[in-house]
Amino acid sequence: MAKEKLVQEITNMEDDFAQWYTDVVLKADLVDYSGVKGCMVIRPYGYAIWELMQKEMDARFKAYGHENVYMPMFIPESLLEKEKDHVEGFAPEVAWVTHGGSEPLTERLCVRPTSETLFCEHYKNIVQSWRDLPKLYNQWCSVVRWEKTTRPFLRTREFLWQEGHTIHATPEEAIEETEQQLNVYAEFCQNVLNMPVVKGKKTESDKFAGAESTYCIEALMHDGKALQAGTSHYFGDGFARAFDIKFTDKDNKLTYPFQTSWGTTTRLIGAIIMSHGDNNGLVLPPKVAPIQVIIIPIASHKEGVVEKATEIKERLEKKFRTKIDLSDKQPGWKFAEYEMKGVPLRLEIGPKDIEKNQCVLVRRDTREKYFVSLDELETKVAELLEDLAKSIYNKALENMEQHTHACTSIDEIKACIEKNGDGFIKAMWCGDEACEDKVKELTGVGSRCIPFDQEKLSDTCVCCGKKADKMLYWGVAY
Amino acid sequence: MAKEKLVQEITNMEDDFAQWYTDVVLKADLVDYSGVKGCMVIRPYGYAIWELMQKEMDARFKAYGHENVYMPMFIPESLLEKEKDHVEGFAPEVAWVTHGGSEPLTERLCVRPTSETLFCEHYKNIVQSWRDLPKLYNQWCSVVRWEKTTRPFLRTREFLWQEGHTIHATPEEAIEETEQQLNVYAEFCQNVLNMPVVKGKKTESDKFAGAESTYCIEALMHDGKALQAGTSHYFGDGFARAFDIKFTDKDNKLTYPFQTSWGTTTRLIGAIIMSHGDNNGLVLPPKVAPIQVIIIPIASHKEGVVEKATEIKERLEKKFRTKIDLSDKQPGWKFAEYEMKGVPLRLEIGPKDIEKNQCVLVRRDTREKYFVSLDELETKVAELLEDLAKSIYNKALENMEQHTHACTSIDEIKACIEKNGDGFIKAMWCGDEACEDKVKELTGVGSRCIPFDQEKLSDTCVCCGKKADKMLYWGVAY
Repeated sequence: MAKEKLVQEITNMEDDFAQWYTDVVLKADLVDYSGVKGCMVIRPYGYAIWELMQKEMDARFKAYGHENVYMPMFIPESLLEKEKDHVEGFAPEVAWVTHGGSEPLTERLCVRPTSETLFCEHYKNIVQSWRDLPKLYNQWCSVVRWEKTTRPFLRTREFLWQEGHTIHATPEEAIEETEQQLNVYAEFCQNVLNMPVVKGKKTESDKFAGAESTYCIEALMHDGKALQAGTSHYFGDGFARAFDIKFTDKDNKLTYPFQTSWGTTTRLIGAIIMSHGDNNGLVLPPKVAPIQVIIIPIASHKEGVVEKATEIKERLEKKFRTKIDLSDKQPGWKFAEYEMKGVPLRLEIGPKDIEKNQCVLVRRDTREKYFVSLDELETKVAELLEDLAKSIYNKALENMEQHTHACTSIDEIKACIEKNGDGFIKAMWCGDEACEDKVKELTGVGSRCIPFDQEKLSDTCVCCGKKADKMLYWGVAY
Repeated sequence: MAKEKLVQEITNMEDDFAQWYTDVVLKADLVDYSGVKGCMVIRPYGYAIWELMQKEMDARFKAYGHENVYMPMFIPESLLEKEKDHVEGFAPEVAWVTHGGSEPLTERLCVRPTSETLFCEHYKNIVQSWRDLPKLYNQWCSVVRWEKTTRPFLRTREFLWQEGHTIHATPEEAIEETEQQLNVYAEFCQNVLNMPVVKGKKTESDKFAGAESTYCIEALMHDGKALQAGTSHYFGDGFARAFDIKFTDKDNKLTYPFQTSWGTTTRLIGAIIMSHGDNNGLVLPPKVAPIQVIIIPIASHKEGVVEKATEIKERLEKKFRTKIDLSDKQPGWKFAEYEMKGVPLRLEIGPKDIEKNQCVLVRRDTREKYFVSLDELETKVAELLEDLAKSIYNKALENMEQHTHACTSIDEIKACIEKNGDGFIKAMWCGDEACEDKVKELTGVGSRCIPFDQEKLSDTCVCCGKKADKMLYWGVAY
């Protein structure tokens, strides 16, 4: 029974990973398709996960002194065009508003794909002196990028995100902010999403449009593909120069300030699905599970069962997000339903359990059963949730380690992929963009990042054989 | 001193109410103008007020079983057109997206002005049986309406709001939901915003596009103008018929379900400014004040002052949103600054206070001073915050009562406005739209609502003299 597959309707991930993913997001009631191509409806269960993520992240941002603001969703074309690299990067993929009511607009407005230009316009109004710095802002909103191929959470034309924007008196301070926020993301992924990530820097060709440098965290999915889970950008004073933002410094000199931005999106929901999910559906990290414990009464027509189950619910919901399913469906159906939804713990209680003053707890990840005395229920639930969080983290870490291989030549990369499938390839790189392109062309794997934790695998570039002092992570990305 | 005006830079509301309002929203750092006409930047202090409002409202919605979701921000033109009255009401004021990147779209998309049509499309996918009902949804997002004249918070082309959307098996249930949510809004306005409201029903000519009936809460501002603070709509099965949403009821019959929607917006921030503010700036209701207590050390260069003030801050922030201003500005400047920002309580502490183991608390609304022993500080702060909340509510209620007048003829309405200025006019109405229009034309006041608390002022319509059994509230609206 413990090993039996209760939910038959979803595709096995080994057979078709993409279809498995689609099945899970739909059957676990995370999303619905909408009539607007590439835009999704985020249903209550999916949105509740996002709300829990928001709460955890928002508290971290505020602890570092960031304040939330709200900028307009529209950017006039002339404003978007002020920073040359930025407009080149984003103009091809924005949605344009051309009419208000029945009137054509005198200037087109794009729906924000990101808000650097709006923040710059605002900074120009409010930053005059070193006393006004730093400004540490964040905004929760939705943005639009007109993607050609879309998939729920992973790539949608509209998505929800947070975008941090900060402005500082010195480059050192701005760089420290960029790194600090990358660390916040990594810690959040590890401790809240139970998902290990590699921290690193993007290569020149891969950085954000308008950035001096882009840092990122990269995670590895079940299928060996890499997923960029968050980015943090250092802008130098490039935007300040383009928007003519200046402040009087402590020496009474007019100076350009230094900026950063950093973001994470609803794509993180896709990341946890593909990091922890299995052939029975979702497996949710306890800290973002909308339901942490689902109570399912057994033989609920018997006297006292519903009462006892309800009493337990009232006890547990003081400490855990707890739900009870009193519907007239069969327990087996309910087991499968909440496994599909990735609820970390199932609590079963029937007449025999009540006699013994116990209940049964079943872990979602291992399906292990525990007979637990009702006297120590809260302690045991807390313990099992913590243990599950550690287990799924370790499993994901193991998956990442097993799918990370060091290679020293193009042929080795090809052979490695042939043998092991997708994953991270570690290889040395001379720093030349031509080599980056050539590796991608010949092997299919692109550069993911220059990890902060560097190893010296050899002295020479995996591609051209010239001197190389950077180790890169390569992979196929979502 | 208590009566002296510390902030000289804002216009007196008696001289120019509109300018006073603009001065306050800008000088209290609530908003900044943006380069997009009619769209505003909500700055940290303004956004923090909205976050506190959201938290209070969201908890109330969830307590009634509502779940948050997220719908796309775009509505295809053909979808918007499905319900006749709805499209007629909204099409003239929507923003149209016509291009994605460099490609023209095959169908125009409007930026949602409201999301009934999107919810209907989704309901059609997920509602099949009576077991699927009710669905009680809410969404926090921004919407766009292409207004001609705009003012921060009160009327902007983009604004933040929540929109509740529910679908039910019976009309009774849907009507109950509509009324329940109106009551939630009224209770929220009273207990959180300390703002009295009149609950009522809109007349036919004034109801929401596509609704069978619209309920509303109306508040009265300092200048005697009425402000619609929230609406709740009952749709009957009109949208279900237009979108062909059907469910199998308990008798196995295919039936149309019944819908509601209800919303409040960032306009509520405008409402609290104009309900409680004075010539020194904002006066914030304690429950939505981002800073509830501002600590200002006096003679902070003297030994021990900053330490003691910081110690008090650490004590208070366990229970209250507390900030300390340790900047090198003069106390007088700080007093004015935090009065402008409407912080409910100011705490002053200097060397003499420390000697006496006391501090000074000053209420924002009355500017009364209290010398408080540090031993009973938390109790006194809680007491004063509660008292301030009651006081500003009572003051607003008194303002509303003083500016509400019963009239029985058009001439009486004219004379009343002449004598008392703007306010609510109570008058009987026969129910004929022609009379509604004529009153507006002749006196300038439009119908605000048919209040739930009816009074029988006379038997005849204030306009045509025919039999009338409805008392209306009339007024000039924001």
